[in-house]
Amino acid sequence: MTVFRILRVDLSREHFTEEVIKEDLLKRFLGGRGLAAYMALKEIPRGIDPLSPSNKLFIFSGPLSGIATISSSRVNVTTRSPLNGVYTHANAGGNFSYWLRKSGYDGLIIEGKSDEPVYLVIKDGEPKLRPAKHIWGKWTGASTKIILEENGFPPDETKAGVAVVGPAGENLVKFAGIRMSDYERFAGRGGVGAVMGSKLLKGILVWGTRDLNKELVDRAKFMKVNTDIVKRIATHDTTKVLHKYGTNVLMNIVQSIGALPHYNFSGTGKLKDVTPVSEEYIKDHYPTETHGCYNCPIACTQMPTVKSGPFKFTVTEKYVKQEYENTWALGPNVGLTDPEANMKFQKLANELGLDTISLGNTLSMAVELAKNGKLNLDVDWGDAGALEYLIYKIAYRDGIGDDLAEGDYRLAVKYGMPQLFVGSRGQGLPAYDPRALKGFAIAYYTANRGGDHLEAYTPTWEIFGVPEKVDPFCETQECIEKQARIVKWNQDIFAVVDSTVFCKFENLMPNIDTEKDFADLYNAAFGWDLTPQDVLTIGERIFNVERLHWVREGKWIKDELPPRMREPIPDGPAKGHSAAKMFDEGIKVYYKLRGWVDGKPMRDTLKKLGLEEFEYLL
Amino acid sequence: MTVFRILRVDLSREHFTEEVIKEDLLKRFLGGRGLAAYMALKEIPRGIDPLSPSNKLFIFSGPLSGIATISSSRVNVTTRSPLNGVYTHANAGGNFSYWLRKSGYDGLIIEGKSDEPVYLVIKDGEPKLRPAKHIWGKWTGASTKIILEENGFPPDETKAGVAVVGPAGENLVKFAGIRMSDYERFAGRGGVGAVMGSKLLKGILVWGTRDLNKELVDRAKFMKVNTDIVKRIATHDTTKVLHKYGTNVLMNIVQSIGALPHYNFSGTGKLKDVTPVSEEYIKDHYPTETHGCYNCPIACTQMPTVKSGPFKFTVTEKYVKQEYENTWALGPNVGLTDPEANMKFQKLANELGLDTISLGNTLSMAVELAKNGKLNLDVDWGDAGALEYLIYKIAYRDGIGDDLAEGDYRLAVKYGMPQLFVGSRGQGLPAYDPRALKGFAIAYYTANRGGDHLEAYTPTWEIFGVPEKVDPFCETQECIEKQARIVKWNQDIFAVVDSTVFCKFENLMPNIDTEKDFADLYNAAFGWDLTPQDVLTIGERIFNVERLHWVREGKWIKDELPPRMREPIPDGPAKGHSAAKMFDEGIKVYYKLRGWVDGKPMRDTLKKLGLEEFEYLL
Repeated sequence: MTVFRILRVDLSREHFTEEVIKEDLLKRFLGGRGLAAYMALKEIPRGIDPLSPSNKLFIFSGPLSGIATISSSRVNVTTRSPLNGVYTHANAGGNFSYWLRKSGYDGLIIEGKSDEPVYLVIKDGEPKLRPAKHIWGKWTGASTKIILEENGFPPDETKAGVAVVGPAGENLVKFAGIRMSDYERFAGRGGVGAVMGSKLLKGILVWGTRDLNKELVDRAKFMKVNTDIVKRIATHDTTKVLHKYGTNVLMNIVQSIGALPHYNFSGTGKLKDVTPVSEEYIKDHYPTETHGCYNCPIACTQMPTVKSGPFKFTVTEKYVKQEYENTWALGPNVGLTDPEANMKFQKLANELGLDTISLGNTLSMAVELAKNGKLNLDVDWGDAGALEYLIYKIAYRDGIGDDLAEGDYRLAVKYGMPQLFVGSRGQGLPAYDPRALKGFAIAYYTANRGGDHLEAYTPTWEIFGVPEKVDPFCETQECIEKQARIVKWNQDIFAVVDSTVFCKFENLMPNIDTEKDFADLYNAAFGWDLTPQDVLTIGERIFNVERLHWVREGKWIKDELPPRMREPIPDGPAKGHSAAKMFDEGIKVYYKLRGWVDGKPMRDTLKKLGLEEFEYLL
Repeated sequence: MTVFRILRVDLSREHFTEEVIKEDLLKRFLGGRGLAAYMALKEIPRGIDPLSPSNKLFIFSGPLSGIATISSSRVNVTTRSPLNGVYTHANAGGNFSYWLRKSGYDGLIIEGKSDEPVYLVIKDGEPKLRPAKHIWGKWTGASTKIILEENGFPPDETKAGVAVVGPAGENLVKFAGIRMSDYERFAGRGGVGAVMGSKLLKGILVWGTRDLNKELVDRAKFMKVNTDIVKRIATHDTTKVLHKYGTNVLMNIVQSIGALPHYNFSGTGKLKDVTPVSEEYIKDHYPTETHGCYNCPIACTQMPTVKSGPFKFTVTEKYVKQEYENTWALGPNVGLTDPEANMKFQKLANELGLDTISLGNTLSMAVELAKNGKLNLDVDWGDAGALEYLIYKIAYRDGIGDDLAEGDYRLAVKYGMPQLFVGSRGQGLPAYDPRALKGFAIAYYTANRGGDHLEAYTPTWEIFGVPEKVDPFCETQECIEKQARIVKWNQDIFAVVDSTVFCKFENLMPNIDTEKDFADLYNAAFGWDLTPQDVLTIGERIFNVERLHWVREGKWIKDELPPRMREPIPDGPAKGHSAAKMFDEGIKVYYKLRGWVDGKPMRDTLKKLGLEEFEYLL
């Protein structure tokens, strides 16, 4: 029997409890995002302030995390989001998940609030809280290093797992993230870093020698399944491209189809050349190191640096982990295509501990509000010096930065232009215009954490044609229905991926049959007897539990398309397209497929998924 | 009888005491720097850590501050310096001194340490401590504004006096300053901001309606003397130049005689063109506002801004108060002549609360150490992006910034090259190479607060020929002796100016007879009967009391010339000159004039000055 070992850390009482989640619950929610969504719904009281001691942080690996397998060392962080007020799950790669499991625990639940800044150290099942007053205020790079060195490790992030918040988390910036080893991995979205900061928890170090193979019922059988999958991934062309260029290979691709949002989505298609912020250009012009998460055959991390000029880095830690979303959010979306300013901005976001996507959303919102005369700020699109100054001011909540630290949605509301907000459930959008990649017109707006591209990633079909090509401009009723089905399927299977906790890249590869592969892996690992359909049902169960967080709070239950997304794209290859029809028609199909009414699961749906215990919330 | 009203604020016990200093003590030490030096020597225990609650901050106006008179609204801050470990006095213009006196007190003594961040508000003799947790972390501009607004004032720094520390003070950066209203005035040197930060005192607001004229024995007589002096100042050409260009008119002048230090004084004369950071150039190329301290006929403040590019400001408070020392320290001394980077650096120093001179000293030291392979830092002379990043890291003590936050002297010692330090008593030098303006070869190294140009300012003679021209390259024994006398006289009279507390600009004007004017002012104001010689004796008494701080601590008593100043200037109009002869010969004359041996007052000297009570320290 496999179990899920949790360490519950009550910071108010400085008390640790070990808890074991039994196999029957794992079979229903796996670990990671799924198990955390379920436990959070049961444990976090209704109506509480996300930054109060009553909130909890669920930092969970999954049943298969860190065992030699496909891109498996990811970690999920679930909490009541200070950004959207209700719910978020954030997810990071690196090695934290691996070392967390090695330390003896599969998950951590952090509750209460410390009296003084502390950090948590777990070595081989021995947890302790250590004072962190001397690290409070330090940026994420230095904090990680100090925590490693104070605990007998070299300043090498591969040797132990470290999670830290930066000044942004300490200062309760609503979109602060948690930096995870190794090297600038982030649990970014929804303000998980502010929750950690509100608890005066500066960091977590995990390390140990637990033999994860012992968790397997039949290691040989498991390795056979695993080796087959790894082989399929490792030899695939997509892997080669990702290894060479990382996620930012998307910059030119998405721009070429007119789906790269420019100027807070107000000018998609208007920036004619984004080449200087594409990874092809950057790797050609800047020294770049590459890196991979623990035991990952893809190793997609690209780490370029700026060696001269006004945006030079000059710190011991010279390279920045660059990703497509980050590059876009702090580049084209703020009208900036200077690669050096862009890399510096990403470096600053990572060092100060800010979610790059929401930072970009917020900066672009500030520019629009300023240009509309609503905000007394002298800043324009692509205004590198001004934007850099604002990044610091946000992290430290200084002056106007105090307003910006509340995020794009609250900023737009406060300054009287909520119609400029393009996200959903209070969280801004990632790097794809849903009017040109219309699967996102459903996926973004139904996402349970708000404005999100990782609960379902429809460009897999629309751009890469995996497993089959779907028209991104999708106009016919047939296509719309197909997209609704894709989104639903993808949301369910990604809920499984996020609960396992694996990376989503394998989904991009046509030789991967996700639900079957996951069934095979779980069955081999633990002697379960899941069918591919069972795997999907687990995903659906998780997705519905997440939606119940919104139902319980009575906030943003119904999915909505913001006004700007009903306007046509102003320029470029996708000029004239809007998301209105896709959303209006698609959502009807989608709700039907989900067994939902106006964004809310029906009683029968909960019953079908074995969620009767939550019927009282309806 | 005039008295000096002190509010003693014990932050540990949240207790206020009013104290009155009687006229007999004022006649010996006046107020400001003099009275504070005396009281600090009696009150601050020997050997204590400057950042411990046992240290005290003396924030003193002077007996004539804020009364309609010459450039009189300056304030003196005295404390045990965290930078040099023993003693500093820092001095700021603006209006704080005026509003402090209007509030009912001539001086504040801050002692102990608060449990939580607080700020002090004094309105018309009613002091109270208010919580400042919500302002802790804010930069100086925003902090000033919040404190004004919370206390019923518009966000206009002319309406009340406000003193605040920024992140640098909170983070105990050893050269943090205290920002004083109005508009980026600073009590900069010696780390007074770190002392305020160590006490968890974020700010001070002072305001009131006390009629300062009532302090005068004979207002009509006083105004007659005053009007005559003001007339002489206001009509002088120097005033016109200072009003037009501010102190940074010195940039081209000092460069032209080869006395502008470049590259941490290692390359004086090597930068061939510093025009872009001269005020003439800046006022021609950048929008600039001008401003004056309270009731000052000179109004020298120049406030330019950067409206575009990588160093654009973009904050509500758009202008930076630019001074010659600041421009030099963060310009030519770090090998930088880009006026936009330079203005942004000054803005950052002011916002983050750093002493610009020591910041420049420290950055240039870091560059030299890096170029010598001692510091693992990729930074070069004039490296604007890298240097900007380091400024933030210093203020937040992040990573290598933690070492830099200790200041240039400790940095040089830690990384094994103390010979690169060019200051004295642990404090770095200001903007004149003492090998080309040799009066400073005595003045800098005998200064009681270390590396200082305002205890005596010999360029008055060497550059401006006021009251007579003295050769700055001064080689003959006759000239050396003359310089030693000038330094001694200037130190004594400036001790009086700093204790009154006035501005020193009038000393630049040949139609001012300082000791006579001060005697006339004091006699008219309070019915005293000081002779000009009495005025000088008061100055000498103060200067000796300051030196006793060093004697008591047994640290840096003997004045010393650092090795680099014995080397010849490598380039430019002053090429080949060294400070060795001037110092070695001059100091002998100087000690004789002072009645000192090896930097220590003789028993007879103390007796002559009425300082017998401190004989036990010898």
